[in-house]
Amino acid sequence: MTESSSPAARLLTREPVVAAAGAGLLADALAAQAVAVTRTDWRPPAPGTSGDLDRVLADPRRAEANRTAVGRVLASTANLVDVRPASEALGLRPGQFLHAGPPITWERASGPLRGALVGAMLLEGLADTPEDAEKRLAAGEAEWEPCHHRGAVGPMAGIVSPSMWMCELEDTVHGNRAWCSLNEGLGKVLRYGAYGPEVLERLRWMSAVLGPLLQRAVRRHGPVDVRAVIAQMLQMGDEGHNRNRAGTLMLLRELTADLVESGAPSRDTADVIRFVGGNDHFFLNLVMPACKLALDAARGIPGSTMVVAMARNGTDFGIQVSGTADRWFTGPAAVPDGLYLGAYGPDDANPDIGDSAITETAGLGGFAMAAAPAIVRFIGGRVQDALDATRRMYDITLAQNTAHGIPVLDFRGTPTGIDVTRVVRTGIVPQINTGIAGRVAGTGQVGAGLVTPPITCFTSALAALADEVPAGH
Amino acid sequence: MTESSSPAARLLTREPVVAAAGAGLLADALAAQAVAVTRTDWRPPAPGTSGDLDRVLADPRRAEANRTAVGRVLASTANLVDVRPASEALGLRPGQFLHAGPPITWERASGPLRGALVGAMLLEGLADTPEDAEKRLAAGEAEWEPCHHRGAVGPMAGIVSPSMWMCELEDTVHGNRAWCSLNEGLGKVLRYGAYGPEVLERLRWMSAVLGPLLQRAVRRHGPVDVRAVIAQMLQMGDEGHNRNRAGTLMLLRELTADLVESGAPSRDTADVIRFVGGNDHFFLNLVMPACKLALDAARGIPGSTMVVAMARNGTDFGIQVSGTADRWFTGPAAVPDGLYLGAYGPDDANPDIGDSAITETAGLGGFAMAAAPAIVRFIGGRVQDALDATRRMYDITLAQNTAHGIPVLDFRGTPTGIDVTRVVRTGIVPQINTGIAGRVAGTGQVGAGLVTPPITCFTSALAALADEVPAGH
Repeated sequence: MTESSSPAARLLTREPVVAAAGAGLLADALAAQAVAVTRTDWRPPAPGTSGDLDRVLADPRRAEANRTAVGRVLASTANLVDVRPASEALGLRPGQFLHAGPPITWERASGPLRGALVGAMLLEGLADTPEDAEKRLAAGEAEWEPCHHRGAVGPMAGIVSPSMWMCELEDTVHGNRAWCSLNEGLGKVLRYGAYGPEVLERLRWMSAVLGPLLQRAVRRHGPVDVRAVIAQMLQMGDEGHNRNRAGTLMLLRELTADLVESGAPSRDTADVIRFVGGNDHFFLNLVMPACKLALDAARGIPGSTMVVAMARNGTDFGIQVSGTADRWFTGPAAVPDGLYLGAYGPDDANPDIGDSAITETAGLGGFAMAAAPAIVRFIGGRVQDALDATRRMYDITLAQNTAHGIPVLDFRGTPTGIDVTRVVRTGIVPQINTGIAGRVAGTGQVGAGLVTPPITCFTSALAALADEVPAGH
Repeated sequence: MTESSSPAARLLTREPVVAAAGAGLLADALAAQAVAVTRTDWRPPAPGTSGDLDRVLADPRRAEANRTAVGRVLASTANLVDVRPASEALGLRPGQFLHAGPPITWERASGPLRGALVGAMLLEGLADTPEDAEKRLAAGEAEWEPCHHRGAVGPMAGIVSPSMWMCELEDTVHGNRAWCSLNEGLGKVLRYGAYGPEVLERLRWMSAVLGPLLQRAVRRHGPVDVRAVIAQMLQMGDEGHNRNRAGTLMLLRELTADLVESGAPSRDTADVIRFVGGNDHFFLNLVMPACKLALDAARGIPGSTMVVAMARNGTDFGIQVSGTADRWFTGPAAVPDGLYLGAYGPDDANPDIGDSAITETAGLGGFAMAAAPAIVRFIGGRVQDALDATRRMYDITLAQNTAHGIPVLDFRGTPTGIDVTRVVRTGIVPQINTGIAGRVAGTGQVGAGLVTPPITCFTSALAALADEVPAGH
């Protein structure tokens, strides 16, 4: 009987057991021959990074700095405390605009970013026609800088102009405020680069009616605990980026009674309720500044390798890291992979755009996909993909946010706090859920899907972190 | 080498492989000895039922009758078309009440049912004190019959009195209407058997303000598609029985703008919004009549073995079956197994009560547990239990309701249409989510949990079905 054979003989008579790591080629070949293969997630670090990785991993400040950084993210609060015009809240003057992502010039700006700037020029009365606006923008008659540079975040093109009304959120623990514009809805909207008459008419109503009525409601209600709503929405099929349906309903429930009692005309009140209730993404513009507050609390901690912002301007993907102050590390933005609306297809898609990846940076969106299995119907894939996406993100994050329990994972907290060293070491890049803008200015939304940042953002951040490691280490 | 041994010899040298069915004792013993056991779900039919089972399974009408029955369930619609007092909608006269479950006398009525009848007597001005009410009820001064006998359903005690306002739902496909009272909220409420001053005060406000304002809103809005909301809520963590949070929010969104425009005083409008928005169970009282409509459409089909009602009065658990007209098959109601509020424990619990098991009868509630993994935090157990509960129900049902896709099961439709023959053949009884009422009249809610019907309801229904099989089969 084989049980009595020598160990060496047994190796020849028993079925081989194979554990595979790294490139899948060998494992695939064995599997094709019906050999049982146990695959591991290990992958080699990105090429040319081992020196930087050794240096940063040996930084004696790192562990404590990262504990502090992610601790601040978890401890942050986010209350909606006001709704105000950007001119007042952010001091934006005529001819000044904010945009999504890292800094960019007109020459390098993508279609949807140009389209949204054109719309903002028209909205603010700084140009008479789209052509006129383009000419003035190209001639340097306006100025723009990233939302992130003013404590704000903007979805998609992320354009903020002085007359737009902003949600104002406060983190009472760390004493910060953050802002985001009011969500316009889907389809032909400014943030996707559309600037037709219906876009401008909607924006004017938002400044004349929606903003002021929400201001009344919020001031009458008192601070709305946005973090509490986020915790709830993750138990109701939302992941806080591409799906904000339950969050929007809960915000509406929170504010409606005060809105009714605020003394505004019934017709306007009903219009506001219908507008917010009819836009499942309205709450995205509150999730984003809540995430911004969490990550701003963790900025500028020497030695921390935690990512504090991921943002795209339609051309570049940029990240910022706690240990490297406000530096941007950029690489080319990719075109998302997803499902398209109507007759649109991948050829119509602009590369990745928007500050909304702040949700993933804080452990929501693509990182919380397992909480929102229904989302696969809008971005493609199967439910298992959603579960796998969240599970994979635990490998590159510093903590689990127990306030954000995912029911189907037995309330395991969302993977939170992206660690540059883990991304580089594993080659696993953050999973981002996103809308897809048309690449031609004026088009609007063409789809929704998944995208990842270029690994170069993380390898150049790692190099900068390595330069900052104190001498002698 | 073993590969060249005879088949008989191989049996002795290889590890045994065991498949186990029926009682788990043998499988457990083998597992304890580290033998791999594949367990199957097969169980022997309930004792003494094989004759009835053979007869009913051989009924030539059965397959087609069940296809018709479950087809009507799937094809039914449910629109909220009005909100009206029970006196008007159901023709209830002073001294007439409806209650949950099969018929029952005062002598056999449980504490919460008696408590709710006492409260209804006080509410209607038919008694001056609880003692006076009890005396009059025991003396036969009032009459009561099951909600189900009047096209209505009531959660927990399910007491309906003439002055209570009812949601009125319509199935436009089959031309039926169904009714349910307005949900009072949790804690000390009439439906859990409480009748204190705060209970009666709330009920008076509901009749004076809530009902009339909802009537205005619904009439102004037009029919509200309750089935569409149910389909959505299953993608938002609700199962439609113990969790109705998303459903309630969607109903509020649907009606609020019309409520605001209906001309009612702002203060009353705001109160109604706060009351509905503050009660996550409000929508249960719309899910229930929607399910009632679906099942009423399938009543009275000769040869059909599909269950069309499961209902409990706090003493008896009763079921009705399509092929046996309006007969009740009853057995003793069990005490639910679950989690208790505050200092309450199992000794405080009344046996199972309420018409709300109509949700399970229609494939929601316990049958849709996999859609609501977060519910295990309120009723006990782990997420896997929720998934397993739904999967088990596919074994005793006739169809999957594709309109009710469960995201985490890759949008598999909810198990719908309980088949008496499958229940008896497998011994698997329906899984019901439920609230737990205090057994002493006047207490209110003490917990929430899981419960199952006694198998005798199904074996006696099977016997009746066997009697109805045409001679010669």
